[in-house]
Amino acid sequence: MAPMAPAGYGNRVEGTHAVLAAARAGRVEHLYVDRGRRDRPGVREAIEEIGADRVTVLDDVRARATTEAPQGLVADCRPILSVTLEALRESSDALLVLDHVEDPHNLGAVARSALAAGIGGLVVSSRRAAPLSAAAFKAAAGALETIAVAMVGSIPEALSRLKDLGCWVVGLEPAAEQSLFGLQILTEPVAVVVGAEGPGLSRLTSDRCDLTASIPMAEGNQSLNASVSAALAAFEIMRVRGAAGAPGRVSSAGQSS
Amino acid sequence: MAPMAPAGYGNRVEGTHAVLAAARAGRVEHLYVDRGRRDRPGVREAIEEIGADRVTVLDDVRARATTEAPQGLVADCRPILSVTLEALRESSDALLVLDHVEDPHNLGAVARSALAAGIGGLVVSSRRAAPLSAAAFKAAAGALETIAVAMVGSIPEALSRLKDLGCWVVGLEPAAEQSLFGLQILTEPVAVVVGAEGPGLSRLTSDRCDLTASIPMAEGNQSLNASVSAALAAFEIMRVRGAAGAPGRVSSAGQSS
Repeated sequence: MAPMAPAGYGNRVEGTHAVLAAARAGRVEHLYVDRGRRDRPGVREAIEEIGADRVTVLDDVRARATTEAPQGLVADCRPILSVTLEALRESSDALLVLDHVEDPHNLGAVARSALAAGIGGLVVSSRRAAPLSAAAFKAAAGALETIAVAMVGSIPEALSRLKDLGCWVVGLEPAAEQSLFGLQILTEPVAVVVGAEGPGLSRLTSDRCDLTASIPMAEGNQSLNASVSAALAAFEIMRVRGAAGAPGRVSSAGQSS
Repeated sequence: MAPMAPAGYGNRVEGTHAVLAAARAGRVEHLYVDRGRRDRPGVREAIEEIGADRVTVLDDVRARATTEAPQGLVADCRPILSVTLEALRESSDALLVLDHVEDPHNLGAVARSALAAGIGGLVVSSRRAAPLSAAAFKAAAGALETIAVAMVGSIPEALSRLKDLGCWVVGLEPAAEQSLFGLQILTEPVAVVVGAEGPGLSRLTSDRCDLTASIPMAEGNQSLNASVSAALAAFEIMRVRGAAGAPGRVSSAGQSS
């Protein structure tokens, strides 16, 4: 297929924290707000940020909402544009790639954890439309306004491209013998690939990884929620880099002597 | 109030993975299953485990379900009994205490992460009834069949009791200066207290902690999902104990010399 204009996402945002973050990012084109919630903290700030002329007060916004609990706020937004892998790589040397992570709550939670751990960007598949929905923005609690996202047609092809761009590609596989904890390759430019909970990484994806690693567990037979796996990977990158010389591991450095 | 009989939970379980785990635990008293799903993997095993005489086939179990996606399986179960703090303490020297974590998905995810990290038990408040619902069991993917749970009337009182029982009580507080990562006290008998996302620990709870610690973040202004905080804490306990001599930190032990 011919190249297309960059895909957009996030044109619908719901929930107090997520709408306030979108408002502060200057993306809200119109806000629908419950009459009874206009004066709540967060809601009032969002309205001020957006401007009263772009706010419609309703008795109940839930009929317009796509999430179960919009907390009285539904916002139509200017979409955020997907970035290219080149741009993502230029702005960050630590990425998370989501292979078949389709649950919007998981995707939002991953964005939130990744941002907190200093991960610069996410790579997600554009094949499945649902993930970057209002539910994902709600679970992300604002993080999807900040973290860069590359939507790609094919995750395996994206991994090859990231390798060309000088990234190590590490796949999280429960069966891998090597532990992700303390993995020194995480100090280099790296993309960590997280798969779905049941099937894990698809074979095509796994084949493109430079190496696979697992999260060590106390009981062999357990599994983790995909967003928990991603969070542990994101914080492990931060930790290993901190231990290698950067600031951020204050307390353990103090205790190791 | 006078002492009561131990509280039970988990009398309703829905979803393939959770029902199969309850069936294997011998808890299922009656199973309702969708006609069209009887032969699916997991479902067939659950039916065999439970015995056909305790299975009713329906056209659609969703009318009986309390979760949104019961995956064709709704099970009425013999409840699991809450254990005492004394029993919890005897069986494990690493506990997670959930202060105001009320979202059942979060609670289920915490149970799953805790079990994977070798945490022996959870302490939850019995004041709020919702948390140990079918949705929690579904999110726990079987972990709530295995991990011991103490339901307590008051979290602050439970913390005092745990201290009497020889546990250090460490509260997770975003504002705490001390980092949880590498905290040596985690090698001793310890209970880590995780609060709600917004307000964090209640003051009464915070006052009972021996010390508070935070999860270090790359960007100061971020926050984490409560189940992600709990997972990071659980795996940190496993990691610190592994580094102190127990097996499990193969890769970093090899790299530390």
